[in-house]
Amino acid sequence: MKCRAVILAAGKGTRMRTELPKCAYPLLRKPMIRYLVDALKQSESVQEIIVVVGHKKEIFETMLEGEVTFAHQAEQLGTGHAVLCARPAFQDLEGCTLILPGDMPLLSASLIEDLVRVHQSSHTDLTVMTTDMEDPTGYGRILRNHAGLLKRIVEEKDADASLRAIKEINSGLYCVRTEALFQALSSLSNQNAQGEYYLTDIVEHIANKGSAIAYKAPRSDCLLGVNDLYSLSLAEAFLRMRINKQYMLQGVSMINPETITIGEEVEIEEGVVLHPNTYITGHSIIRKDAIVGPNTEVHNSTLGERVHARHSLIYDSIVEADTVVGPFAHLRDRAHIGTHNRIGNFVEVKNSTTLHNTKASHLAYIGDATMGENVNFGCGAITVNYDGVHKNRTTIGNNVFIGCNTNLIAPVQLEDDSYTAAGSTVTKLVPKGTLAIARANQVNKENYVEDYFKKRNGKKTEK
Amino acid sequence: MKCRAVILAAGKGTRMRTELPKCAYPLLRKPMIRYLVDALKQSESVQEIIVVVGHKKEIFETMLEGEVTFAHQAEQLGTGHAVLCARPAFQDLEGCTLILPGDMPLLSASLIEDLVRVHQSSHTDLTVMTTDMEDPTGYGRILRNHAGLLKRIVEEKDADASLRAIKEINSGLYCVRTEALFQALSSLSNQNAQGEYYLTDIVEHIANKGSAIAYKAPRSDCLLGVNDLYSLSLAEAFLRMRINKQYMLQGVSMINPETITIGEEVEIEEGVVLHPNTYITGHSIIRKDAIVGPNTEVHNSTLGERVHARHSLIYDSIVEADTVVGPFAHLRDRAHIGTHNRIGNFVEVKNSTTLHNTKASHLAYIGDATMGENVNFGCGAITVNYDGVHKNRTTIGNNVFIGCNTNLIAPVQLEDDSYTAAGSTVTKLVPKGTLAIARANQVNKENYVEDYFKKRNGKKTEK
Amino acid sequence: MKCRAVILAAGKGTRMRTELPKCAYPLLRKPMIRYLVDALKQSESVQEIIVVVGHKKEIFETMLEGEVTFAHQAEQLGTGHAVLCARPAFQDLEGCTLILPGDMPLLSASLIEDLVRVHQSSHTDLTVMTTDMEDPTGYGRILRNHAGLLKRIVEEKDADASLRAIKEINSGLYCVRTEALFQALSSLSNQNAQGEYYLTDIVEHIANKGSAIAYKAPRSDCLLGVNDLYSLSLAEAFLRMRINKQYMLQGVSMINPETITIGEEVEIEEGVVLHPNTYITGHSIIRKDAIVGPNTEVHNSTLGERVHARHSLIYDSIVEADTVVGPFAHLRDRAHIGTHNRIGNFVEVKNSTTLHNTKASHLAYIGDATMGENVNFGCGAITVNYDGVHKNRTTIGNNVFIGCNTNLIAPVQLEDDSYTAAGSTVTKLVPKGTLAIARANQVNKENYVEDYFKKRNGKKTEK
Repeated sequence: MKCRAVILAAGKGTRMRTELPKCAYPLLRKPMIRYLVDALKQSESVQEIIVVVGHKKEIFETMLEGEVTFAHQAEQLGTGHAVLCARPAFQDLEGCTLILPGDMPLLSASLIEDLVRVHQSSHTDLTVMTTDMEDPTGYGRILRNHAGLLKRIVEEKDADASLRAIKEINSGLYCVRTEALFQALSSLSNQNAQGEYYLTDIVEHIANKGSAIAYKAPRSDCLLGVNDLYSLSLAEAFLRMRINKQYMLQGVSMINPETITIGEEVEIEEGVVLHPNTYITGHSIIRKDAIVGPNTEVHNSTLGERVHARHSLIYDSIVEADTVVGPFAHLRDRAHIGTHNRIGNFVEVKNSTTLHNTKASHLAYIGDATMGENVNFGCGAITVNYDGVHKNRTTIGNNVFIGCNTNLIAPVQLEDDSYTAAGSTVTKLVPKGTLAIARANQVNKENYVEDYFKKRNGKKTEK
Repeated sequence: MKCRAVILAAGKGTRMRTELPKCAYPLLRKPMIRYLVDALKQSESVQEIIVVVGHKKEIFETMLEGEVTFAHQAEQLGTGHAVLCARPAFQDLEGCTLILPGDMPLLSASLIEDLVRVHQSSHTDLTVMTTDMEDPTGYGRILRNHAGLLKRIVEEKDADASLRAIKEINSGLYCVRTEALFQALSSLSNQNAQGEYYLTDIVEHIANKGSAIAYKAPRSDCLLGVNDLYSLSLAEAFLRMRINKQYMLQGVSMINPETITIGEEVEIEEGVVLHPNTYITGHSIIRKDAIVGPNTEVHNSTLGERVHARHSLIYDSIVEADTVVGPFAHLRDRAHIGTHNRIGNFVEVKNSTTLHNTKASHLAYIGDATMGENVNFGCGAITVNYDGVHKNRTTIGNNVFIGCNTNLIAPVQLEDDSYTAAGSTVTKLVPKGTLAIARANQVNKENYVEDYFKKRNGKKTEK
Repeated sequence: MKCRAVILAAGKGTRMRTELPKCAYPLLRKPMIRYLVDALKQSESVQEIIVVVGHKKEIFETMLEGEVTFAHQAEQLGTGHAVLCARPAFQDLEGCTLILPGDMPLLSASLIEDLVRVHQSSHTDLTVMTTDMEDPTGYGRILRNHAGLLKRIVEEKDADASLRAIKEINSGLYCVRTEALFQALSSLSNQNAQGEYYLTDIVEHIANKGSAIAYKAPRSDCLLGVNDLYSLSLAEAFLRMRINKQYMLQGVSMINPETITIGEEVEIEEGVVLHPNTYITGHSIIRKDAIVGPNTEVHNSTLGERVHARHSLIYDSIVEADTVVGPFAHLRDRAHIGTHNRIGNFVEVKNSTTLHNTKASHLAYIGDATMGENVNFGCGAITVNYDGVHKNRTTIGNNVFIGCNTNLIAPVQLEDDSYTAAGSTVTKLVPKGTLAIARANQVNKENYVEDYFKKRNGKKTEK
């Protein structure tokens, strides 16, 4: 049977107190609404996703372009009105329609499937997903008739003490026969304190005219709605531990997993060990037996098998197998490090590539460089890639030895098997097998030091 | 009505096992007693704060000078004796007196106000603040009479099984009619195992002679007393989550807030995003839309709007709007960084200032320098601010380009629009628009490398 | 009475999904089985430890060589079979035998002692350690007779609803009269679904022929068995907080202890302060009043009194009293730093020693060096310890001043009171009191800068 999903994402989410509209706000660096869209795309029963946008709609239109159909709610006149705004996106009124608040990022594809399946097999007009809450304060309570069918939803403010004691609450997630949905919506009134059209009002309408049931989810946590940045942090904690536990059961070892944050789109293979305070987000892949952390941030990057990265930052980069990164290394902007490399402490690599077995072990900057294999990029060596006007590239062949504190003034090339002397500034080609040297000879001035301190008439002071 | 507060802070706090007396020990880098003093200063009903000091009293006298009145307990003869020692600080016996243990840092001004208000409106002699404890073991139990009035407090050791089952306990916080207080204190005896004068003994005395009530606090957590470093960590966890939750509700986004530690005197504005393991303490201010963390420590510093600081350490410094700091940067000792700067990886700035749009992107040390706008401080460049005897300043104008691995031997000045060549050591003035260069020319020695390795009769070994 | 312990460690632990066999897998960087072996060695009643190994037995044989007796289970035919495989290690059948699963790292010596004492004083044949579990699902339930003695253990799959409601479960830890043990084992059958010999079957056998009791441990957490990496993380969380709490009660201050990870073999003295996200493992010692963290990793290292180390990494090194390390420093490979040193930001020290009051405050690499006292190792200075073939040593005397960005080409010696000029490359001996200088003089080229930018026909672009 045909099933469409309507996601309500038009609101600002005032209590978030953020510039971004609530449903576009990131959760583990992925926008909240994307979780719902991804879950719906995984659900076999859903054929089309309609997103009702309003406040800053261009953000959603850019983010989800080509993936969903957009509907536009120009004024925020309530949730019922929001669904009505989606009417033009319906070419027919066949099948059923899922209605989902856009602020429910923990909802899983399987729970969505359950709701649709229950709805369809019950041949009912409306199915409300409900759940039991330890503390139901603030939620609409579920009132069932003697047959256990849904009678109506009572809002907190309209509930007397006995109704307030009900622990089964409305999650805000509905599956409705599409025709019944729009009939009910057309009967909505905005004669209430806020002057809004409430979606929940359709429940009583449909229950009276047709049939309505409540489907209680086995756990409430997946239905957590995000209203402010505090509830967002609760959703994140739940998501974080769900992700972490799943990886641990799949053979990923985590030391102090409470301090480890893994984004939802990350892939981590078996045998990986994560040390405390590791933070991996975006489209990152961590291959088998890699060791990451402590204190390491990886974003949109791939770490090969047995890579060891600690106390480091790796953004938008690739590190191939058996390479050691850090501590205190920084790879960024499409750094691509080959196998068996060492990128050691206080080394930055930006927009550069290396082949097999190359090393930059300490205090170096490699920017806009192409490096071969078996290169030793000495301590303190620098690619001088910026001349004040342009960025220029450095090209280094195989088996090259760059001496300590060498400046390579780009554009410049060092051919295979070449060598630079420590402390040299290299401004032109170093041919194959050649040593480039550019420094003054050492002169020793005897008795200088005593005179020097006398002249300054002081002892050494504390630095 | 007149109300004075007496804080008991004379004890060593032996179970803390610290050099500092317990009430001076820091909680989120602020001394424990300061929380109480600050809460009392916010309480409108409290006119005077008297602190009873004893063990290492000079620490408190320095810390709270001019803010409170001190009383001195020379010998530690019990809590009752401690209050008696405060007697000389009372010029009259009017009104009521709050008695507070100095180890209760979570107590809020509003709860103090509640206690005083209840006390005053009840026209009673003594009001004890109590609370229900899930596990009351170790605490004095509250015994009420049939009218619900306070009868007496039974210590653990004197309680039989039925009394031990009482979950309402004495918090140690009292509000007493001042005259009744000192009458009761004068009747105290030290005929007990410890030979001490116990403050709790006044309760039965006053209940018998006059009237005493118990006021139960709605939550026990604010009344947590710190006895050792473990209970201090519990207080800190409570305080940390109270602070964090409040900020989140005000529009500050926190990723993994359990790992984020914010001091109690920090100010964070709306729109700020804090990544995991951020640690902000002292008198720090984080302005609107700044992004801080992960792994960033900020102490006594101000970060302007939209500043982005990650994997960095910022102490006693100011960073103006739109500047990017880190990863792995270190600002300290009154660094003052202008707007739209970049202080990049492995860069230290100490006691220096920059104007608009200046950059030190990698591996640099800027110490004791005054820098203009649009300066490019190259990779590996260093202000040589120490000559072995004195610290000297470097002065850099606007639009200056400092080449990579340049040494600026202070005192030295680089005028506007000047330039230094990479690898130069600059020892004297570089006038406006001038290039300073101090390096040898590159010489290429062909076939050198093969000979070199032959001479050392080896292949390259692993580093 | 004679008491032997048999640890069952032959299994692979398939659900761990790790290369290492389960009982060799590290928990806080110490193999899981070592916790048990250490606890048993502390137990006065245990005279001999027999470890039954199978899968990758050489790992255990290397790890525990000389400390335990090994028995070999060639095929994994069940826990009963595993104990039978230990039979050859018994020269007699005197006394009692403790049987312990190798995956129970939280078991304490005192609980082991309790079990043996209860067993021996009860003059029973078999004592099973049990515990109450809130959720007993999956565990064997303890069935007692009317006298409270152990009747049998019912596995989950054989338990009806009433038996499943029993919350007392089998921990898998037994103390058995040795003779009764091997009699019972010889009667085991493998006529079950798995075709394995189950150790639990001995319980009913012994209960019928002789006497068996259940000894309930007061807490279940010490008996946690590790089956997968998720349960390992639970064991680690428990262990971490047990260790942390104990240190706090002993006078170690911890800020956000949930983020602090301390290995089980670490020693921390009173007065130490640990900031968030500190990670100390291996045989490390932190002396009185040291301050460590935030974000600091210490492994197999000793930090002296009042050492202050933050945002740093210290591996296999010694730091003597009153030295400041970091932020962003890296000590490794037997660095031995003297008293009152400063190893500052972006400094690496490897396999080097320093004496009293030496400083390397910024951006330096000290590798394979021997340094005296009162040395000032300038910013950007480097020991060039690798010539492409060999590693060579640098020797620096007392009161030496190494200028900024100096290269010291090893092997090289700097005698007492010598000095190097900033930007010099030093290739040969610097005698006592001598200044070594190796650099070109500064030349100022006026109007160069304007021409330069004209030639490149551009304005400065963004870096």
